[in-house]
Amino acid sequence: MRNKLIVQKFGGSSVSSIERIKNAALRALSYAKKGYKLVIVVSAMGDTTDELIDLSSQITKNPNPREMDMLLSTGEQVSSALLAMSLQKLGLKAISLTGWQSGIASEDVHGKARIIKITPKRIEEELKHNKIVVVTGFQGINSKEDIATLGRGGSDLSAVALAYALDAKICEIYTDVNGIYTTDPRIEPKAKKIKQITYDEMLEMASLGAQVMQARSILFAKKFGVTIHVRSSLNKKAGTVILREAKMLEESVVSAVTLNQSEAKITICDVPDKPGIAATIFKEISKEGVNVDMIVQNVSRASTTDLSFTVSKGELKRALRTSRKAANKIGAGKVFFDSDIARVSIVGVGMRSHSGIASKMFEILADNNINIEMISTSEISISCIIQKKFGKKAVQVLHDKFGLGVKQ
Amino acid sequence: MRNKLIVQKFGGSSVSSIERIKNAALRALSYAKKGYKLVIVVSAMGDTTDELIDLSSQITKNPNPREMDMLLSTGEQVSSALLAMSLQKLGLKAISLTGWQSGIASEDVHGKARIIKITPKRIEEELKHNKIVVVTGFQGINSKEDIATLGRGGSDLSAVALAYALDAKICEIYTDVNGIYTTDPRIEPKAKKIKQITYDEMLEMASLGAQVMQARSILFAKKFGVTIHVRSSLNKKAGTVILREAKMLEESVVSAVTLNQSEAKITICDVPDKPGIAATIFKEISKEGVNVDMIVQNVSRASTTDLSFTVSKGELKRALRTSRKAANKIGAGKVFFDSDIARVSIVGVGMRSHSGIASKMFEILADNNINIEMISTSEISISCIIQKKFGKKAVQVLHDKFGLGVKQ
Repeated sequence: MRNKLIVQKFGGSSVSSIERIKNAALRALSYAKKGYKLVIVVSAMGDTTDELIDLSSQITKNPNPREMDMLLSTGEQVSSALLAMSLQKLGLKAISLTGWQSGIASEDVHGKARIIKITPKRIEEELKHNKIVVVTGFQGINSKEDIATLGRGGSDLSAVALAYALDAKICEIYTDVNGIYTTDPRIEPKAKKIKQITYDEMLEMASLGAQVMQARSILFAKKFGVTIHVRSSLNKKAGTVILREAKMLEESVVSAVTLNQSEAKITICDVPDKPGIAATIFKEISKEGVNVDMIVQNVSRASTTDLSFTVSKGELKRALRTSRKAANKIGAGKVFFDSDIARVSIVGVGMRSHSGIASKMFEILADNNINIEMISTSEISISCIIQKKFGKKAVQVLHDKFGLGVKQ
Repeated sequence: MRNKLIVQKFGGSSVSSIERIKNAALRALSYAKKGYKLVIVVSAMGDTTDELIDLSSQITKNPNPREMDMLLSTGEQVSSALLAMSLQKLGLKAISLTGWQSGIASEDVHGKARIIKITPKRIEEELKHNKIVVVTGFQGINSKEDIATLGRGGSDLSAVALAYALDAKICEIYTDVNGIYTTDPRIEPKAKKIKQITYDEMLEMASLGAQVMQARSILFAKKFGVTIHVRSSLNKKAGTVILREAKMLEESVVSAVTLNQSEAKITICDVPDKPGIAATIFKEISKEGVNVDMIVQNVSRASTTDLSFTVSKGELKRALRTSRKAANKIGAGKVFFDSDIARVSIVGVGMRSHSGIASKMFEILADNNINIEMISTSEISISCIIQKKFGKKAVQVLHDKFGLGVKQ
């Protein structure tokens, strides 16, 4: 079946109107004409999910998660039925299936359940009858026979998991952008679409703020070797293929530059330089449910050190309050914060085998009078915290100097 | 359980806004405080179903019925989740369940499936845990594990069937009117709310144009002895109880007067008076899918007779075309029609044991110079077709002379 079956996923913006739904159906028609079998995963239409959340918020600020899943899962059911009708209108055989009809079993939590097993008996049966199967994304059924939603990026996960369970040739993710770019084209018009990218690079980019796909779907795809093709629902251009090893004619060391302006920096001064101190601080912070991102601790001067870390701006207030409490507890000094920062990062699997990339990055920034406040590195990325006002410029000069705009 | 369990059904207008949903929850709270267990069946919010139908009509005029059921069933899922949240907000334990979770098995048709079996295992389990169970009305699951909707009045049917399956004390149908009236209060301000009415009278009234409940739910209730209480969701007044035998202090022969102005009359003149002729005509008409209501054939004069019948105005055109074809085929004369007619009817189980009711009706109409064009009787009703302009007056004089406005 592998060579004949394709899983396609249409996100909310790609099914936001009847017109868009009809377009998705026309695309399916062109695939059907080429002899492909299709399983199409759909999100809810446009703002449907937000509208449903708004209804619930008129009742309570803390809706029961099980009931919330009952409510939200209707959005995908609506779009799946409408797409099936559109396919039928074109003369194609089609059927819509909910998560529970598709055999997508989830764990017993609500709002962000993980998929634990897919038993796509019904899907396979309908495919055998030459039907295009439209599956509601973002949802499964748990052991209590309750509907459970899969959380943010859940429809992508549904698609990738179905592609694996059905041994599909490829999983196409249709979105409103043309693919993955070397950097954000709104910041750097010379940004180029990347033809192929590895799971690891994509994961790194997702964690650094690129918003095309959630990390969990990519992690799943990496684990089970599902090839993903991210592309636009608005045209027929090829997008970006995400796979284990990109095969490029000319391998570039750096694949992309990312910018994240949604973080704030907190610094705790004069932290006693003793074992277990960092653990104490971050335990306190995580107890408050605050996610800490980059952490930098400088080499100790005398018996104290400064500890800096970043959090998302939305969590800054809570993080500050907890940090001050923790600082007090361990006898540290003042706590400062700065929300006018940006994180600029370069990503590329080539870094694994190339040295000197970090120093080149620092040099480029220095040549442009951009001061670096914090540095953090992973195996395939380097991130610098800089002042927010330099964010855009940093992206442009790095994109240019690492040759991203001209290569490919 | 019988004395402790009540099934309530809230129609579309009773859950048309978050405010109304909260009101339904408050009502449940007052029942819970009295120690009742509740199963609440909900329709879709206000115009939701129409909005979903509109979406599908932008795709096709002939949507696949299975997909239509997938689409429409989401409306009740939304309102069930929102009501469950509202109940929880009031501190009550509650859970929403879909038709398939509630074990409502339907036949394998779509759009107007009949319920074939209810296995309310999950509902009973949740009731045992002292939860109020909110069930999506209007839907079940068929043998293919597909969602099937139950057609017009489907939520009433869900409620009545669940009341039977769960052996509930009573099935309360909440609506936007205070109950069943002796006649339409918009026509006769002296109309009174009926405290108790029999299934048979209610069935007769439904078939004569009263729109409070569909005949199928009443038939089901009659068959299985489910007591129904039709009442308003906007106040706490008792409504009308529908049961096998009304127990009134003072039994009235006539219970209600109804008026139906949605029909037209067709007359085929000079129909040959031979066996099988009527069958030929009505077979032709029913082949076209036209529903014929009242049929009157006069005693033959010479060798031909006139045949009159009524159809709904929406089907008049098709009925006329077919009638003319049929008249031609059997050698009958001209075909006339009149759409300015009204059907006024009196209904009452007391007619079974009282004679002279028909002549009294005719006399009342004659005294008021209202000419009768057609007459039709059933065991517990008498209907007269009159000119439309006399419809309102006929209702008023009959209501008055049969003593409906002053009794009770």
